[in-house]
Amino acid sequence: MSSLKGGGRVKRRIVILAEGCFTALEAKTAYGLIRYKPSEVVAVIDSTKVGKTAQQILGLGGNIPVVRDVEGSLPYNPDSLLIGIAPRGGKLPLEWRKEIISALENGLNILNGMHDKLSRDPELATLANFRNVQIIDLREAEGYNKVADYLPEKNKAKVVLTIGTDCRSGKMITAFELTEEAKKFGWNPYFVATGQTGIVISGEGVPIDAIKGDFMAGAMEDFLIQKSKSYDLLVVEGQATILHPGYSGVSLALLHGTLPDAMVLCHFPGKKKFNNYDLALPPLSEFVKLHEEIARPLKPSKVVGIALYTAQMSEKEALREIEKTEAETNLPATDPVRFGCSKFLQAMEYLKRTNVLSQM
Amino acid sequence: MSSLKGGGRVKRRIVILAEGCFTALEAKTAYGLIRYKPSEVVAVIDSTKVGKTAQQILGLGGNIPVVRDVEGSLPYNPDSLLIGIAPRGGKLPLEWRKEIISALENGLNILNGMHDKLSRDPELATLANFRNVQIIDLREAEGYNKVADYLPEKNKAKVVLTIGTDCRSGKMITAFELTEEAKKFGWNPYFVATGQTGIVISGEGVPIDAIKGDFMAGAMEDFLIQKSKSYDLLVVEGQATILHPGYSGVSLALLHGTLPDAMVLCHFPGKKKFNNYDLALPPLSEFVKLHEEIARPLKPSKVVGIALYTAQMSEKEALREIEKTEAETNLPATDPVRFGCSKFLQAMEYLKRTNVLSQM
Repeated sequence: MSSLKGGGRVKRRIVILAEGCFTALEAKTAYGLIRYKPSEVVAVIDSTKVGKTAQQILGLGGNIPVVRDVEGSLPYNPDSLLIGIAPRGGKLPLEWRKEIISALENGLNILNGMHDKLSRDPELATLANFRNVQIIDLREAEGYNKVADYLPEKNKAKVVLTIGTDCRSGKMITAFELTEEAKKFGWNPYFVATGQTGIVISGEGVPIDAIKGDFMAGAMEDFLIQKSKSYDLLVVEGQATILHPGYSGVSLALLHGTLPDAMVLCHFPGKKKFNNYDLALPPLSEFVKLHEEIARPLKPSKVVGIALYTAQMSEKEALREIEKTEAETNLPATDPVRFGCSKFLQAMEYLKRTNVLSQM
Repeated sequence: MSSLKGGGRVKRRIVILAEGCFTALEAKTAYGLIRYKPSEVVAVIDSTKVGKTAQQILGLGGNIPVVRDVEGSLPYNPDSLLIGIAPRGGKLPLEWRKEIISALENGLNILNGMHDKLSRDPELATLANFRNVQIIDLREAEGYNKVADYLPEKNKAKVVLTIGTDCRSGKMITAFELTEEAKKFGWNPYFVATGQTGIVISGEGVPIDAIKGDFMAGAMEDFLIQKSKSYDLLVVEGQATILHPGYSGVSLALLHGTLPDAMVLCHFPGKKKFNNYDLALPPLSEFVKLHEEIARPLKPSKVVGIALYTAQMSEKEALREIEKTEAETNLPATDPVRFGCSKFLQAMEYLKRTNVLSQM
């Protein structure tokens, strides 16, 4: 389990590195952290937007300033630098290296979400040691070496997994919103982070995409069984999609490793092709059917709703899109951020009272 | 790419460690190597069967002797010790350590198929260095860091993937037999190894189950594009199954990373539950349907036949099982080892002449 000491307890003072890409869609980690832990963010680095505020750029985050570089963030007294992008493949852009060195030289910890392990970089590790600060690799996956045992009966909590039609379809945000809203419905819910952003926000989680193929499902199983001792609803952040050309294996390991009672399908409306690929996106109904079919032999599960990411639309357009999606899929749809997700919670309420899904 | 220097070119003299488990079903690696590279095996270690021959135990392998330990193998002049089991999770049994030390002390190289990296074990590495021998970790997966680009047009060869209903259903053997038989049908085929046994036999391959989740499909894509420059048919050894509770993510990454034109479903007849799990095995038709459905959005593919593992049956029973399977699935079935696999090759011949599958 990837666990950040103090994460979620001691309040951190984070400056986020999002050079050249500080927008809601591009800087997923920055957006997530500012949305869900704004009091822990003191500044964002993006030299192309210096002088603006998070509020102006994201529509949330208040007066959190955008600064030129680590140097420019020092007046705001940060204690950590977060690498705030999630690039394809997880590689650290070379030009960011000098900012990391600057952060270490100024006594900041590093929170690193890339696949590259900065804590094992001799130059950076030596510098961190010399300055007495920490380099925390959020995707550290050493120590995961258990094959899943398939123990659905050991997990006493209900499990909801957010699945998607692609990367960047709102799976993490939907999981966060579901977790918050579930409290109003009488659940004692827990958000299960599986990506670097979720882990940095929640303070712990399973960096599933960095784990060796054989041990991905086992890592999820272990984490869920442990958390089910303290919570009655585990809301798992999904990754990519089971039809993704590069990451489908990760998505399926998440599905079979978590054995969800219910799934929420997340989608970016109007999308015709997969991000970064010349490949047509199948219709929503095909995603629903495939997920339910490939889940069933291990544990029957149902897609209980569609979460749409509509920030790019007017409210009127968003409502029309939701209506269209409901007609197309015959499932409740909403934008969880814009309109809440009580629609999904009603389906989950039903799960709470009955075991109908597990008997399908 | 995991590549064994000399593998497949220089003839090796291997002693296989299969202590307590030298049977066709338990010692997969031993069985595979003795079946496909018998001239490279000088002895097998299993103290419970000392004095017997491979022929007596496996029904093949001729006079290859079973010996008590590394010491007992020295009269046969081995140059390498192969760890000849493939245990769940890939962990090295502690009691085998002393045999490995004995091998190193006697100047043997080590071929290791476990997830544990013996080349990074300080004691063993020091000893190997001192004795001037090599420790080769067949599942070495460092250096795989490319996300799949989805480039089906760059792979000029046809691709056949052996898929399964579970682990140990004959996927590697079926791939080997298909590769051999394809030559008779005018193909220039290549066997693509994806597990430690296949890699040790073929001399190279992709240790997919040891690769980080994000990079599994990319590793396959790269390897296939490279091999398609020299061959017109790539027969890929599948792993586990897309319904396996622990390994399904690996299986799906293989499917989407290789984008097969055709699949052959491998099955151990009569099996009611998954190995090691209290979980019912779905019917064959469900495996066929699910694989075709989850392949289709990326590239249409068809299951062209069922390979049955019938070594445990009489010939009469085997033929009856094949007939039953053909009636049940409406697909050609055979035991490739026992009866050849020209039935599948006819379907592949069809592929060669037309592109009908890619236009489905």
